[in-house]
Amino acid sequence: MGEEISHDRSSDSVGLVKKELFTFAGPPDELRLESGSRLGPVTIAYETYGTLSPARDNAVLILHALSGDSHAAGYYRGSDAKPGWWEIMVGPGKGIDTDRYFVICSNILGSCMGSTGPASLNPATGNAYALDFPVVTIADMVKAQKALVDHLGIDSLLAVIGGSIGGMQVLEWSVRYPEMVRAAVPLATTTLHSALAIAFNEVARQAIMADPNWQGGSYYGGPKPNLGLAVARMISHVTYLSDGAMHRKFGRRLQDKKDFSFNFGGDFQVESYLRYQGSKFVERFDANSFLYITKAADYFDLKSTHGGGSLIEAFSRTRSKFLVVSYTSDWLYPTYQSKAMVQALKKNGLDVSFCEIKAECGHDAFLLPSPRLTSLLRGFLHRVSTESA
Amino acid sequence: MGEEISHDRSSDSVGLVKKELFTFAGPPDELRLESGSRLGPVTIAYETYGTLSPARDNAVLILHALSGDSHAAGYYRGSDAKPGWWEIMVGPGKGIDTDRYFVICSNILGSCMGSTGPASLNPATGNAYALDFPVVTIADMVKAQKALVDHLGIDSLLAVIGGSIGGMQVLEWSVRYPEMVRAAVPLATTTLHSALAIAFNEVARQAIMADPNWQGGSYYGGPKPNLGLAVARMISHVTYLSDGAMHRKFGRRLQDKKDFSFNFGGDFQVESYLRYQGSKFVERFDANSFLYITKAADYFDLKSTHGGGSLIEAFSRTRSKFLVVSYTSDWLYPTYQSKAMVQALKKNGLDVSFCEIKAECGHDAFLLPSPRLTSLLRGFLHRVSTESA
Repeated sequence: MGEEISHDRSSDSVGLVKKELFTFAGPPDELRLESGSRLGPVTIAYETYGTLSPARDNAVLILHALSGDSHAAGYYRGSDAKPGWWEIMVGPGKGIDTDRYFVICSNILGSCMGSTGPASLNPATGNAYALDFPVVTIADMVKAQKALVDHLGIDSLLAVIGGSIGGMQVLEWSVRYPEMVRAAVPLATTTLHSALAIAFNEVARQAIMADPNWQGGSYYGGPKPNLGLAVARMISHVTYLSDGAMHRKFGRRLQDKKDFSFNFGGDFQVESYLRYQGSKFVERFDANSFLYITKAADYFDLKSTHGGGSLIEAFSRTRSKFLVVSYTSDWLYPTYQSKAMVQALKKNGLDVSFCEIKAECGHDAFLLPSPRLTSLLRGFLHRVSTESA
Repeated sequence: MGEEISHDRSSDSVGLVKKELFTFAGPPDELRLESGSRLGPVTIAYETYGTLSPARDNAVLILHALSGDSHAAGYYRGSDAKPGWWEIMVGPGKGIDTDRYFVICSNILGSCMGSTGPASLNPATGNAYALDFPVVTIADMVKAQKALVDHLGIDSLLAVIGGSIGGMQVLEWSVRYPEMVRAAVPLATTTLHSALAIAFNEVARQAIMADPNWQGGSYYGGPKPNLGLAVARMISHVTYLSDGAMHRKFGRRLQDKKDFSFNFGGDFQVESYLRYQGSKFVERFDANSFLYITKAADYFDLKSTHGGGSLIEAFSRTRSKFLVVSYTSDWLYPTYQSKAMVQALKKNGLDVSFCEIKAECGHDAFLLPSPRLTSLLRGFLHRVSTESA
C-alpha cells in the first residue's frame, strides 16, 4: 500500500492504473481492413480512468499520436517511470476531468504498445508478422476502437479527443460513426496528409529500410534496425519543433565545450538532443510499427474516403459538435489546414468552435502544458455534457 | 567542329567550356586552416566565362551551394550532359552578362568536384584522406578562393555572388577581404546557421554514418554508403522545397496507379521523386564531402568569427555594396535572417539593396528561372560597374 501511495504522486493524478487488453475478431470473423485483407484475432491495449456514469453517457475517448500508447495518465504499480503521456491534461480537476468523465485511452492497431501490430505473433506461422502484417489505415484503427467501445458497453461517446494522428482518428470517428460521437476535438491535425508531410514520412521510412538489419522487415529475434529507426525518429522529431522553439531551446550553444571539435562527434546541443531522442526511441519502439503508422497517416484523406473528393460532403454525415485547435508554429499541419476543416464543418451547419493557439513550440504544442488548451477543453466538455445530445 | 556547334545550343550560352585546375599551397607552405590544421597541396577546380578587361576590373566570382561545382554555365565538349547549374543566369546578355563581365566559378574546398576534399589522395599516405581530411570552414573555402583569384592576377572583384552556402562564402569574402570586393550578392542565405538548419544537417549526417558501408569514412575502393547518402540527400532536398511548392508539384497524386498499393514500395509521386533525387545524387557525390560541407555550414556564424558576437561589428570592415535577396517561402534561411543582415549592414552606413522575392518554390528558388532576380542582378551589376569603386 505504501507503494501505491508513493505512486499517487499528487492529488490531481489518477494514481495507479493498469493496462487492459481486449481481444476480438478471432477467426473466422476477422477484422475486414480497408485494403481488403482480413486480420484476426486483434488485440487492442487500453486504459480507463474515472467512473462510467449509470447512464453510460460520460465516456471520453482519447486517441494518441504516432509513438504514443494507451497510458495517457497515472502511474503503473512498481514503476518509477514517468506518468502517462497526457498526465498534464487527464486527471481529477484537470482539463479532461476524471471526476466527471470516464476516460478511455486506446492504443492503435499497428502499434507495438500492446495492440496487434507487425511485431505480434502471426497465428498462421507462429512467427512475428513482420511485413506480412497488412497495411492498416486510420479507418482500420478506428474500426478496432469501435469494437473496444462496444465491448465496454458504451453506445455514445461524450467526446473523442486526439492530436496529430490521434486527431485524424477523431475525424474518422466523427464521420464513420456519427451517431456515437457527441463531440469531436481534433488537435494539431489535418483532414489530409500534405505532400510535405508525406515527404518527411517517406524519408524516415527510407532511413529504416536502408538499415541492413531491417532485413525486409524480418529482423525479430536478430539485431534490430536501430540506427535506421533512430535517424527516422530524428527526422520526425525535427518536424515536431519549430525554428523559434529550437532557437530558444538550443540556439547555437555548444555541448560540453567552448570550441568547435572540428570532427563529426557533434558540437551543438541540438545535435546531442537529437541523438538522445533517437537512441531513447529505439529502446521502446518497433521499426516496422513506425513504417505502418506513418503509412496510415500518409493514406489519410477524409474527402476522398468519405466525400468523393469533397470535404463538405465528407462531413455531411457527422452530427458531432466540434472543437478544432491549431497552433501558430505548427508547420507540419499548419493552421490553414484546420481552417479548411472548420469551413467544411460550418458549411454543414455544424456547431464548431475553432481556436488557433499562439505557441512557439511547433506541432508538439498539444502535448505541452497549456492553460489555454486546458481551459478550452474543460469548457467545451462541460458545455457538451450539459447540452442535450 | 560540328560537335562544338551542336553544344553551343543557343546564342545566349557561353557555349563550350573547360574545367581548369589550380594547385597551390604545396609543402612546406600549406594552407593554414581555421582549425589550426594545415593542408596542402590544395587543388581548386574552376571555370571562367567571358573576357577579363584590360583594366582587370570586370571580374565576377560565383560561389556555389552544397552540391554544386565549378560548372556554372555552358557545355563540356563531347558531353550530352545538361549545361552548368546556373545557365539561366550566366551567359551573353543574361543577368550575369558574359559579354560584359569576366565570370569565375570556383568549386569549394572539401567538395568532390575536382577540388581537394576527403576523397582526394592524401600525399602523406598515398590513400584517400577519408576522415583524415581536416574539417574545413566557410572561411577556409574563401581563403582557397582568394589564392585562385590572386593566381588569376585579379586585385579587385567587381562582385562576389552566391546562394545558400555560396552566400555564406559571399559574406565571408566581403568581411575577410574587404578591399577586394566591390559588390556582394548573398542570395537565400544567412549570417549564422540556425538550430533548425543544424538539426537537419545533423540528421542527414547521421543517415550517412549509420550506413555500415560508411566504415568510419574509409570506404574508398569498397562499396559506398549509397543508401545512407541517398537518405541524407532526401532530407536536405525536402528542406529546399516548400509546403506550397510540393502541394502544387505533387499534391497527393499517385505514381503509376489509381489505388493505394498497401505496401511500402511508394505510392505517391512525391515519394518517387525523392527516391529518384536520392539515387541520382549518389552517382555524382561523395558521402564524406556531404559531411564536411554541411559541417562547414553549421559552423558558420559571422558575428562570432568576425564581430565578437556583434553582427554590426562583424560587418564593420567591409566596404562592399550589397544586394541581399531572400525568398518568401524559404523556411531554411527565412527572410527575417536576411533582414537582420541588412540591418547590420545599414548600421555600418553601407550601400545596401534588399529584395524579398515572392516565390513559392522554397529555398531552391534562387536556382530557378526568375525574371525578377535576373533583372535585379543585371541592374545591380550595371550600377556597381559604372560607379567608381
